Amino acid sequence: MTTIDGNAERRLILITMGDACGIGPEIIAKAFAQGDAQGCVVVGHVGVLRRAVRCIGSSAAVAKIDTLADAWALPPRVMPVLEPERLAADLHELPIGRVDARAGRVAAVCIEHAVALTHAGEGAAIVTAPIHKEALHAAGIAFPGHTEMLQSLAAERGGAPPVRMMLCSAELRTVLVTIHVSLRQAIEQITFDNVLATIRIAAAAASRWGMAQPRIAVAGLNPHAGEGGLFGDEEIRYIAPAIAAARGEGIDASGPYAPDTVFMRARHAAGHPGEFDIVIAMTHDHGLIPIKYLGFEQGVNVTLGLPFVRTSPDHGTAFEIAGTGRADPRSLTAAIRMARELSARQFAARGPLSGAKTP
Amino acid sequence: MTTIDGNAERRLILITMGDACGIGPEIIAKAFAQGDAQGCVVVGHVGVLRRAVRCIGSSAAVAKIDTLADAWALPPRVMPVLEPERLAADLHELPIGRVDARAGRVAAVCIEHAVALTHAGEGAAIVTAPIHKEALHAAGIAFPGHTEMLQSLAAERGGAPPVRMMLCSAELRTVLVTIHVSLRQAIEQITFDNVLATIRIAAAAASRWGMAQPRIAVAGLNPHAGEGGLFGDEEIRYIAPAIAAARGEGIDASGPYAPDTVFMRARHAAGHPGEFDIVIAMTHDHGLIPIKYLGFEQGVNVTLGLPFVRTSPDHGTAFEIAGTGRADPRSLTAAIRMARELSARQFAARGPLSGAKTP
Repeated sequence: MTTIDGNAERRLILITMGDACGIGPEIIAKAFAQGDAQGCVVVGHVGVLRRAVRCIGSSAAVAKIDTLADAWALPPRVMPVLEPERLAADLHELPIGRVDARAGRVAAVCIEHAVALTHAGEGAAIVTAPIHKEALHAAGIAFPGHTEMLQSLAAERGGAPPVRMMLCSAELRTVLVTIHVSLRQAIEQITFDNVLATIRIAAAAASRWGMAQPRIAVAGLNPHAGEGGLFGDEEIRYIAPAIAAARGEGIDASGPYAPDTVFMRARHAAGHPGEFDIVIAMTHDHGLIPIKYLGFEQGVNVTLGLPFVRTSPDHGTAFEIAGTGRADPRSLTAAIRMARELSARQFAARGPLSGAKTP
Repeated sequence: MTTIDGNAERRLILITMGDACGIGPEIIAKAFAQGDAQGCVVVGHVGVLRRAVRCIGSSAAVAKIDTLADAWALPPRVMPVLEPERLAADLHELPIGRVDARAGRVAAVCIEHAVALTHAGEGAAIVTAPIHKEALHAAGIAFPGHTEMLQSLAAERGGAPPVRMMLCSAELRTVLVTIHVSLRQAIEQITFDNVLATIRIAAAAASRWGMAQPRIAVAGLNPHAGEGGLFGDEEIRYIAPAIAAARGEGIDASGPYAPDTVFMRARHAAGHPGEFDIVIAMTHDHGLIPIKYLGFEQGVNVTLGLPFVRTSPDHGTAFEIAGTGRADPRSLTAAIRMARELSARQFAARGPLSGAKTP
């Protein structure tokens, strides 16, 4: 067993190219140019990625590889690209900064290919560059985001796992009970089962990463966590019983806490040791507002519950600046570091996933 | 006209004592002991405040005054206390750290007295120390918080103003469309009228403070501000039309913006000039999570729409540490500074409020 780039295993991290018309290819090119993507292979279109390298003013090489193993033979800072079959040759002529069905289709093909490789034990983790929902939609693909698409791909393979979105900043980890639905629907989705499943998924993921007994804070849904039932009863009916059930299973969960102070209490910063390791947030924005407040640069999205590690940057395709070379790669490089760390920890804690091949 | 402590007018700031069993009296005592409460008079119970001075280990004097004007004759750091009639003599024997109907009643009497004085032009502003809703309730007073109580007191005097809660940190100002209701009810309260009224109140308040054309960002309610109607339609039906109406009135309002990024964009910090001056948040926690995230120390609550300036610290009675002398007075002193600044700006911009007497 060789240690490569902090991995305890000789498996590569797969970066999916994302929407060819957005900033994904550019930030990938920057990550390679900066030396932040060692041990990674891009699943994408060679022409699009070469255009991105030119766009950032780099002269780095992009090398088309036929199998993942070929990547190990390449010199540092060369970007290895594995191109799925069926891709059109002229994708690098797609207009930048616009919704395009062709870009939506190729983004989806790359994700499917990366998932297939990872399921076959060929990838240590997947890092996804941003996709655009409207482009996916134009291509006839109805998922509102990566999380839902990855869940569905896992389900096709018989996994059918309940998955949850975790967001990490340099200071905070939060796992969301509900994500891409209206606030009205989110309230309907706050049930005993959903809250308990989220707590369990968070605890299981943390345990896979070697964090045996994470301190899990569960936020309420309503102001002041319902103030004893005065401002809503979801805390009394669903959230508190789910916390009690989780505690009954030996999970160190507590709450429900007032949403407006629990993130501050969990915050890990210099001179401010956080009280909790993970916060369970009931809604998308309760969880994302504190993650994003100090800036996108360190934000990483991690999908919990999948049979492989998947991370992504905490931003979208940013069509408005795509093609200018100005996009900031820091959230992507943070996502790569996180993928490397989580897959290494997972490997160390439990050994390779079933089906994983190590040379 | 004499300038006192940054005021352009010779009027005092009234600090209401808050719940006698909470940390209110202690943090007031600390503010005076530190010299941070010059130009302030406490509306409260002398015995309770003397107990608080002893609790923080201070030997500073507490002076009962008969009229506000008496305060000017006192030396610095002496705490002038104006005691409303009808208070029981033995309130300083109330147990610390517990819900008590007597504490609820006296807290309400002090607020009523301060409002009456301010309406009579005797106070420049009111700063309220924390009250406890259950104690109020035990005393037969049904308001969920100061904001609702102050609105009702103003209405009794024929003002009947729509009021809104503004929260300020060192980096951010946010005004809430909905406050102390369940999230379900909050969604029902997101109407064209409520959103437009909130934008107008924020713009009018800023104008009274000398900020002629504030940049007002309006957050959405749903994830991604509804993503074009995919995740809820309140943005399309109510919020966007209210923004358009406000713009038609010459207000620089924009949005609806995704709730998870608008606060980050508005944040004013070193090297990060905020894009907006005020953010309108649809729910209590969308607005309060980013205000509180970096800590309570600088958080100030300002009630907009009242005929006088009212501020308060951004925390509650903290029964769990009341009586220990450990309570942090920084949010209160920030509230005092804010009251001083806003009343001075308001005075400079428009002259004294109608009915105000200046010596």
